Amino acid sequence: MNQREETGTLLSCRPAIKVLDATLRDGGLVNDFRFSDDFVRALFAANAAAGTDYMELGYKADADLFDAEKFGKWKFCREDDVFRVLGENKTDMKIACMADVGRCNFMRDICEKGSSPFDMYRIATYINTIPAAVEMIEYCEKMGYETTVNIMAVSRETEKELSIALDMLGRSPVRAIYIVDSYGSVYPEEMRVLAAKYLEAGAKYGKEIGIHAHNNQNLAFANTIECTALGVNYLDATVNGMGRGAGNCALELLLAFLKNPKYKLLHILRFLEAGHMQALRDAGAVWGYDLPYLLTGVYNRHPSSAIRYIRDGRKDIVTFMQELLDQE
Amino acid sequence: MNQREETGTLLSCRPAIKVLDATLRDGGLVNDFRFSDDFVRALFAANAAAGTDYMELGYKADADLFDAEKFGKWKFCREDDVFRVLGENKTDMKIACMADVGRCNFMRDICEKGSSPFDMYRIATYINTIPAAVEMIEYCEKMGYETTVNIMAVSRETEKELSIALDMLGRSPVRAIYIVDSYGSVYPEEMRVLAAKYLEAGAKYGKEIGIHAHNNQNLAFANTIECTALGVNYLDATVNGMGRGAGNCALELLLAFLKNPKYKLLHILRFLEAGHMQALRDAGAVWGYDLPYLLTGVYNRHPSSAIRYIRDGRKDIVTFMQELLDQE
Repeated sequence: MNQREETGTLLSCRPAIKVLDATLRDGGLVNDFRFSDDFVRALFAANAAAGTDYMELGYKADADLFDAEKFGKWKFCREDDVFRVLGENKTDMKIACMADVGRCNFMRDICEKGSSPFDMYRIATYINTIPAAVEMIEYCEKMGYETTVNIMAVSRETEKELSIALDMLGRSPVRAIYIVDSYGSVYPEEMRVLAAKYLEAGAKYGKEIGIHAHNNQNLAFANTIECTALGVNYLDATVNGMGRGAGNCALELLLAFLKNPKYKLLHILRFLEAGHMQALRDAGAVWGYDLPYLLTGVYNRHPSSAIRYIRDGRKDIVTFMQELLDQE
Repeated sequence: MNQREETGTLLSCRPAIKVLDATLRDGGLVNDFRFSDDFVRALFAANAAAGTDYMELGYKADADLFDAEKFGKWKFCREDDVFRVLGENKTDMKIACMADVGRCNFMRDICEKGSSPFDMYRIATYINTIPAAVEMIEYCEKMGYETTVNIMAVSRETEKELSIALDMLGRSPVRAIYIVDSYGSVYPEEMRVLAAKYLEAGAKYGKEIGIHAHNNQNLAFANTIECTALGVNYLDATVNGMGRGAGNCALELLLAFLKNPKYKLLHILRFLEAGHMQALRDAGAVWGYDLPYLLTGVYNRHPSSAIRYIRDGRKDIVTFMQELLDQE
């Protein structure tokens, strides 16, 4: 069956769709991965009940590079920590972990799947480190894991470079290739062009395509469902859209949209009603659409300057815009 | 030139586009139209400098129906109030006012354009009051005003009823017919279908088409620019998305998107930096995307129950969802 026949309509559903909750991973960038064990257990139970297909627990970061004192344990996702907090996974939901090219000592830290709680590794790479990403993909697949790959910051790449990257990844054993709108700069009509390009490569090499959107221009959900309509099957979301800067596609919006009855928004609403996300905000975590993120999105920049603007409590948005223009 | 040739691309601009700031009107539904004269003057100056084509000042509500003690003056938009606050309009920006079918004594309250600050009346109607809307349109055009018409709550109408409505309005002297997603329930792929239908009627009768979106599912901006790409030229927005319930398409997002150099986001940023919108929030005005609005959007309901939920400080979102389902 070709991609087009598989896409369906607003009234149908497509079993090939996989929803991945990235709250602990992208949201961890907001609070340095300091989630309590109770939070993680409650979110895990909520996701499993809601029909979420994958839950990403955090990063497999290299403890030689990052000071363990400065981060919560989900930055490192040690197997014993995961087992201690969640026990054996007796749900149908799979567990994922992200490994960044250059920030993960994968040969040392990624064990065989048989002794791991993880089902999937998600390799994150910039376009200039694809060969290193392919090496990690091959390693993880050999160790027994599913793999996906995120090509980050594609909004700043040329079409030619992207084509080469998709060909290289297409020839790797990776299961799914993600479109990543790192800067939240992509409009829906551009996103549809990107999706068509990825889907073409996916059809050629037998890969699924995924979407990981950011909400700088309030477009994360819109871009996610536009991709879905075209045949993109791996959909990233986070509860309340928690994620770096303007955050991500909100899981509650996505589950409310998807028509497959396996997805049950109710359980995410119960999790929210219990106040888990509000507790993070009360503890100082800040994320979501705001003016400085709109500007970094429009100017196609990394959100770091906007994050600093908000952290510093600045209110001089016109000066901030001038600073962004000065950096061109 | 036909509609399709006029639509342009992400790199071009289309002079036929008209941006309308509805902050005082849709935002007035949030704070009972209690905007200070200073706020209105500052917003007027900001919009004029930003290249906004029309600024809507509020409603022409019938003072026999609404107690003037309970609302600010922008609910009634008396000519002398407008002149006193804004003086003569010496800018290129036009001034609009909304008149609701059944809530406006138009023959008494709408004077000839020569003695009015208004350039345009926007007639708001449900689909079952189109004949009354046509009567108001004809009256206002005869008095010298431009007119547009908002067909509200179209997400609950059948395609056949909508076709009849578009034909009736097509034969009227109205300049533009608006798609209004009153409940914020329309997804972009449905919005494109609606836009195509309105644009077809617009081409047949020589009318412009407009879009007034609500943000219940964080789709107001996305739906607005999707319509724009298809040839919809009248675009409603409000500063910070201020409007009933989940609010509207944010003017700052829209101006950042539009490529015509006449639009200058800077002046809206200056207005925001001066703290005018924050002052409204500090005074108790609440609007914007939130869970109960997501639910009324998904279930295609008027936002009134969600507005009450938030006003009452409720946190039992699961019970609220059950209440919505019980009303089916």
